[in-house]
Amino acid sequence: MKFKVSAELGYDVRSSSTIVLNIHALRTAHQTILSESLTISPAIDAEELTNITTENRFVRLDIPEPGNYNIRYEAVVDNCFEVRSYAEYSETPLGSIDAGVFVYLNPSRYCQSDKLYRLAENTFGKIKGNYNKVVAITRWIHQNVEYLSGFSNSETSAYDTVTQQAGVCRDFAHLGIALCRALTIPARYFTGYSYMLIPQDFHACFEAYIGNQWLLFDATRLAPLNGLVKIATGRDAADAAIASIFGNVFSINTKASCEMFENEPFVPVYYPPSVYDAYTYS
Amino acid sequence: MKFKVSAELGYDVRSSSTIVLNIHALRTAHQTILSESLTISPAIDAEELTNITTENRFVRLDIPEPGNYNIRYEAVVDNCFEVRSYAEYSETPLGSIDAGVFVYLNPSRYCQSDKLYRLAENTFGKIKGNYNKVVAITRWIHQNVEYLSGFSNSETSAYDTVTQQAGVCRDFAHLGIALCRALTIPARYFTGYSYMLIPQDFHACFEAYIGNQWLLFDATRLAPLNGLVKIATGRDAADAAIASIFGNVFSINTKASCEMFENEPFVPVYYPPSVYDAYTYS
Amino acid sequence: MKFKVSAELGYDVRSSSTIVLNIHALRTAHQTILSESLTISPAIDAEELTNITTENRFVRLDIPEPGNYNIRYEAVVDNCFEVRSYAEYSETPLGSIDAGVFVYLNPSRYCQSDKLYRLAENTFGKIKGNYNKVVAITRWIHQNVEYLSGFSNSETSAYDTVTQQAGVCRDFAHLGIALCRALTIPARYFTGYSYMLIPQDFHACFEAYIGNQWLLFDATRLAPLNGLVKIATGRDAADAAIASIFGNVFSINTKASCEMFENEPFVPVYYPPSVYDAYTYS
Amino acid sequence: MKFKVSAELGYDVRSSSTIVLNIHALRTAHQTILSESLTISPAIDAEELTNITTENRFVRLDIPEPGNYNIRYEAVVDNCFEVRSYAEYSETPLGSIDAGVFVYLNPSRYCQSDKLYRLAENTFGKIKGNYNKVVAITRWIHQNVEYLSGFSNSETSAYDTVTQQAGVCRDFAHLGIALCRALTIPARYFTGYSYMLIPQDFHACFEAYIGNQWLLFDATRLAPLNGLVKIATGRDAADAAIASIFGNVFSINTKASCEMFENEPFVPVYYPPSVYDAYTYS
Repeated sequence: MKFKVSAELGYDVRSSSTIVLNIHALRTAHQTILSESLTISPAIDAEELTNITTENRFVRLDIPEPGNYNIRYEAVVDNCFEVRSYAEYSETPLGSIDAGVFVYLNPSRYCQSDKLYRLAENTFGKIKGNYNKVVAITRWIHQNVEYLSGFSNSETSAYDTVTQQAGVCRDFAHLGIALCRALTIPARYFTGYSYMLIPQDFHACFEAYIGNQWLLFDATRLAPLNGLVKIATGRDAADAAIASIFGNVFSINTKASCEMFENEPFVPVYYPPSVYDAYTYS
Repeated sequence: MKFKVSAELGYDVRSSSTIVLNIHALRTAHQTILSESLTISPAIDAEELTNITTENRFVRLDIPEPGNYNIRYEAVVDNCFEVRSYAEYSETPLGSIDAGVFVYLNPSRYCQSDKLYRLAENTFGKIKGNYNKVVAITRWIHQNVEYLSGFSNSETSAYDTVTQQAGVCRDFAHLGIALCRALTIPARYFTGYSYMLIPQDFHACFEAYIGNQWLLFDATRLAPLNGLVKIATGRDAADAAIASIFGNVFSINTKASCEMFENEPFVPVYYPPSVYDAYTYS
Repeated sequence: MKFKVSAELGYDVRSSSTIVLNIHALRTAHQTILSESLTISPAIDAEELTNITTENRFVRLDIPEPGNYNIRYEAVVDNCFEVRSYAEYSETPLGSIDAGVFVYLNPSRYCQSDKLYRLAENTFGKIKGNYNKVVAITRWIHQNVEYLSGFSNSETSAYDTVTQQAGVCRDFAHLGIALCRALTIPARYFTGYSYMLIPQDFHACFEAYIGNQWLLFDATRLAPLNGLVKIATGRDAADAAIASIFGNVFSINTKASCEMFENEPFVPVYYPPSVYDAYTYS
Repeated sequence: MKFKVSAELGYDVRSSSTIVLNIHALRTAHQTILSESLTISPAIDAEELTNITTENRFVRLDIPEPGNYNIRYEAVVDNCFEVRSYAEYSETPLGSIDAGVFVYLNPSRYCQSDKLYRLAENTFGKIKGNYNKVVAITRWIHQNVEYLSGFSNSETSAYDTVTQQAGVCRDFAHLGIALCRALTIPARYFTGYSYMLIPQDFHACFEAYIGNQWLLFDATRLAPLNGLVKIATGRDAADAAIASIFGNVFSINTKASCEMFENEPFVPVYYPPSVYDAYTYS
């Protein structure tokens, strides 16, 4: 499936500043970038950086002069979303998890899994199998947390959302991650462009590590899983900010869109058509 | 300088469990392991894992049977601690920081730098130069936070310690890291064996990234910087736990020691002999 | 029913200090003090104070000299515990609540009801009747929170316990209070001596205001409701500390006991024998 | 000095609801209400309630029908603001504080003094005299906390503001109260109408109990102390909300104003003209 994604960001830069953007589509085995462009006006140099561990692609703008800056990213991305039978996913014994995956068991800024052990164990501990546990977590979040713009803020964490029961996609993802880690299931944050998300915006959800694979889960159920174009993964939103700003800069505009590139038939896959299927998106 | 380090850990394992230890001395350009041994009794297999990003060395024990387990690690490590003139360290412009280092600017579980921006800016913002800022942070923590065993617990974070003003080495390190990141200075957690630390135990301090180098800082001032044998680095204590336990396991014993291997002359270097020197330990 | 209660407190006073004790049995319409004595050794003056709003009885000790001080309080208290049919309790419309009771709707230090609105509404909002809501809250806490000495500390609040799901009687009470207030049911903290509590100690539970009465609830289910001798009420534990210490004082001993004064037949009433009975204890 | 104060509140009531207002000027020895009126349109009954402890005056509106409701309160108040020499205020020994005042030493929802002991002691502990301590606290807050609308929210507490260093009058007051209590100085929240406050609005500051008097302090320095018309006091903002809403109600308008009733000469008194004067306002 080919998607055309775009992001448009506007900044009022008041003094020489650095902005690190994380809006480029990721290159993965299942996601190929057919074309892409980044336009900055007025023109300044942009350096692309790649985190060798996560392969997240950053662009660093060192902006010497104050002014209004507009950034436009466009890409055509070919995605190969796999739906596989859950039967293919045997459990991953803790003993066979890679050292690189282990860090996704650790608590992080917005996912304080160390404070959620009892709640996670009491609520999901008796469910057999990690896949079923994550399905149950996702459903529980969907049932208990209301999607409510403006309720949460940049400091809101899973520890807040578990009780306050409202938030946006970022909060849904953080709570899912924290509950997984509390059950010794590695989990990480996912950001992307999202086809059919209304209104169009960047989207966030999470991946859990099951059967030696990162599987995608979205407790918001607001967007089809097979319409996501991956931008980045990280421990939580702290690692995958769309823009990290260092300096006296005001954001004046943020837009993202994702549409079909060609007129292909698209059957939206919402999670879960049945609890026996898992969605790999890696 | 050659040190002989040892760790002794005892566990009462009540059911089949996994323990991941992070007690092995790190291999770095400045730290060579001359010999080491790991003894587990009763004997079970231990798999060594290395995180390719941090190079932290983990040992995973999959313990099939309940029982009392004792783990003893011993190593002889040759350390080459460099004291360099601060004049050698020019500032690192944000624009020249590696993508791999950028993550150490992000807030983490115990180092919520996003909540400390104003305090950090108001307190240290006018000091010229990142090195001087970190020296000032270290001194400020030393003056304002009391070393007090038992005051803090495993949930205590920099956001608590900044106000509650007491804690142990871990808390001192977290606060240092959080303040650095709030000032856009990458910082990370450091664990190690510590010569002349009284009483003998594992020690924690922090590193700040200045002049394209990780420099070591210890706000506790309890141990000479040139007597540290590095075990691990990470975003905070969540990444560098001595032991991560998965299962029904009780810790019954934890000891660490560090002594001179040969009768070498040792001049303890405490931070800072003068504010104009920096200590590299990488 | 006549109970003999006693408290014994020991302090190591290092400098001239003030200690305010709140260990005297309260005088209420249903609780008569037949005899009581307070012995302080070495002897110092003690001033009794009564808060005119709550009628809590405080004793203030101004201790001029360092030393070891022992305080012993003994009382014989005649209690008249009423079990009434729930049918007697009509709902209290908000509009008929006294101004003095309104403050027990406000969030307090350990009962941040303002952060629990959604959880309370989502979990208990559909239950008809305030009495039934509080019964359900009490049962929910009993089912979800484990009684675990040493898990919580003096800073632990309802916002922590709701997620961390473990604590002592104080934490059970705080969570009950916070959930009631979040549902617009006035609630307050209750401390007392407790017959048949094992091991013997001071006990804490909570009262909810229903049908123009304060009714007693105890989510721990550790002690019979009709074996409680009331000491104090307050917004939360901050108002009803057994001892408030101002100065350089170390607590070396705290004991409380409650036994039958005469050989009366005692039928322990645990909450609830049936959900249709309410227990007034005022 | 005679002030004319007015408040105008508008609500969109979606279902039958109760609103408890706390906008009436308080009657005190130093504040006489010459005239006042409360107009509700459309007309509904309003019941005035007075908390016997704090003497705060509440008005309860039981609104049976949905609709838009406008409330207008107007009063002419004669105030007698006293400036007295600090020399008149001897210290209040803890031993002579009333039981009713003791509760203002306890931590409360927004003023977690129990978490600020060390910071308060380390920062202000060596200052001689409670009056001087509170002056220093007020100055410290003024210097370290920036007045910034929109930075804080209804959950923000003194524990946040002490580190995050920005907020509105409510946050300044909470921090002042928490620091006082941490130093064993009773302190309480004050709300009022405020002459010369720009823009015109309700104002909040705090009172500390010194020399058996409640003295007024305002760390914002935004309004003259002798231009305040007292509405309420309480442990913190939880006790002194302008409006407490129970039901499905949206606030659509909140205005407050305070002007001179007659053309009297007014010499604004800002705190402190000198550190040796104290302002009583009770």
